[in-house]
This record gives sequence, structure tokens and C-alpha cells, in this order.
Amino acid sequence: MRILGIDPGISLTGWGIIDTSYNKIISAVKYGYIKTTSSKSLAERLKIINIELQLIINKYKPHVAAIEELFFLKNLKNVVLVTQARGAIILTASMNDISVFEYNPKIVKMALTGYGSACKNQIQCMVKVFLKLEEIPKPDDVADALAVAICHANIMKI
Amino acid sequence: MRILGIDPGISLTGWGIIDTSYNKIISAVKYGYIKTTSSKSLAERLKIINIELQLIINKYKPHVAAIEELFFLKNLKNVVLVTQARGAIILTASMNDISVFEYNPKIVKMALTGYGSACKNQIQCMVKVFLKLEEIPKPDDVADALAVAICHANIMKI
Repeated sequence: MRILGIDPGISLTGWGIIDTSYNKIISAVKYGYIKTTSSKSLAERLKIINIELQLIINKYKPHVAAIEELFFLKNLKNVVLVTQARGAIILTASMNDISVFEYNPKIVKMALTGYGSACKNQIQCMVKVFLKLEEIPKPDDVADALAVAICHANIMKI
Repeated sequence: MRILGIDPGISLTGWGIIDTSYNKIISAVKYGYIKTTSSKSLAERLKIINIELQLIINKYKPHVAAIEELFFLKNLKNVVLVTQARGAIILTASMNDISVFEYNPKIVKMALTGYGSACKNQIQCMVKVFLKLEEIPKPDDVADALAVAICHANIMKI
């Protein structure tokens, strides 16, 4: 199974694709990020995210997508921007008949480290270990996208 | 010019199309709503909104879209759901090369009644008056969608 993990954002959307076989993680296929600038309108930014994500889907043909549930409550303006990007991302996956699985951040932490309050560094280290990477993918959004993909793979295994 | 006004929601998205000529409102072309049920997943709901909105765009070919800016702060869970629907709606318009104009609720009130603190009933009455309708469109989401379309027409006139 090929899993597309996504960490949505309006400025930066991290994405990562991993392959599993018999629910065992084999490898990271490709990862990266989609960037949009604040000089563009919201509609233009969502369209860029859609177009780039569509190219990724066309090229790597993931079977499912995994995305973190939202949890932050601090900055409402940011929540609104990120959730609109999230809506556009989930719609893009859905338009391609890719099932979207949403995971609570605690579940992601549990699935990667066995510990629901693990810190960011622990998660990133486990991403490197699970995928046998030489370095932690940067920026954080990419590692987070891979983390939620690994989470889905591990939960499917259970 | 043909304007598509939208009042986004995850359960109910109101929409209304109006025609203007030389920036004068002529008539309401069509209005209605898109409904999704909570028994479906978020991805399925966003897809339903996208498909139905695409049918509306294909049939009525609006030139621009107008949508209210978000303003509510009370229920974060609701904000997250509505903004995801909003992201999907703006993306759908943008994918059709329809420019999206966003209006602050106070601006909508000002544009319809000349008074930024007008109540819901006043706005709905003005929707009926501007569009020479026999009744106020129901549910409220439809009247709100027409209100933001009228707001765009009136602001373009200025």
C-alpha cells in the first residue's frame, strides 16, 4: 500500500509518501513541500496547493491519505487559514477517490513512539528510524507529514 | 455580470446567483442550498459540496463569486468544519477561474442597509427588496448567500 501523509498549511504544506507491504513499512518513496506566498489571494493559494498536490497524486498514485486532526487553539486567524488549506487538500484527495484518514496528534505520537506526550524531536527521530533515512527530513512540516503516514501504516498493522 | 454569492457551511451551504447590468442589479437568477449529512466522512461531504457547486457553476456560469469572511469565535469545532468547507468552496471557484471576493460581515450589512450593525431580519428584508422577490428566501443560509452577492454588486457600483 502506498500512503500519502500530509501536514497541511497555507504557506507550507508538507507531504510524504511511504510504501508498505503486508502492513510493514518498506521505504519513503518521496517527500517534499508545497509553498505559497502571502502576496497571492487565498483562492490563488488554494489553487496552487490543489495543482501541486494533484501532480504528486498523478505521479506517485497513493492509495490512501493520512492527515493530522487540528488541535491548536491559540491563533484563530491561523486556524482559519490552515483549515481552509486542509479543506482544499482533503477535497483534492477525495476528488481522486483516495480515502482520507484523520489522526489525533496524540495518536500519531503513540503510533510512532508508544508515548502520547512525545516531543517533536522524538517524533522526528522515529521518522528517520522507521524510514531508514540518513537525516531528519526538513522542514518540520515534511517530517510531520511522514509521521502521520507512518502512523497510518502502524495502525493498519494493528 | 453574473455573481455567485455563497454562505459556506459543512451541513448547509447557501448559494444564490444574481445578474447585474452596468452594475445595476437586475434579478435573482437562481438560489438554493447544498446539504450534506453528518453520517458521511468529512472527505465525502467536501466532495458532495464540490460536485454540486460544480454543477451550479456549469449551469449558470457565474463570472465572479462573493463570500463572507468568517467572524465567529465561539465554537472552535464548528469553525474548523465550516472553514474546511469554505476552503473546498473557494478552491472549486478558483479551479473554474472564477475570482473570489471576500467581504467582512459588517461590509455586507453596510452594503445592503447602509448600517454596519443591521440585524439579520433587516438584511433579509433588503434581499427581498433588492431582488424584487415575493418572499424572503429560506433557509437563512440562502438569504445570506444572496446578501453577499448583492453586497458585491453594490460595491462594484461604487
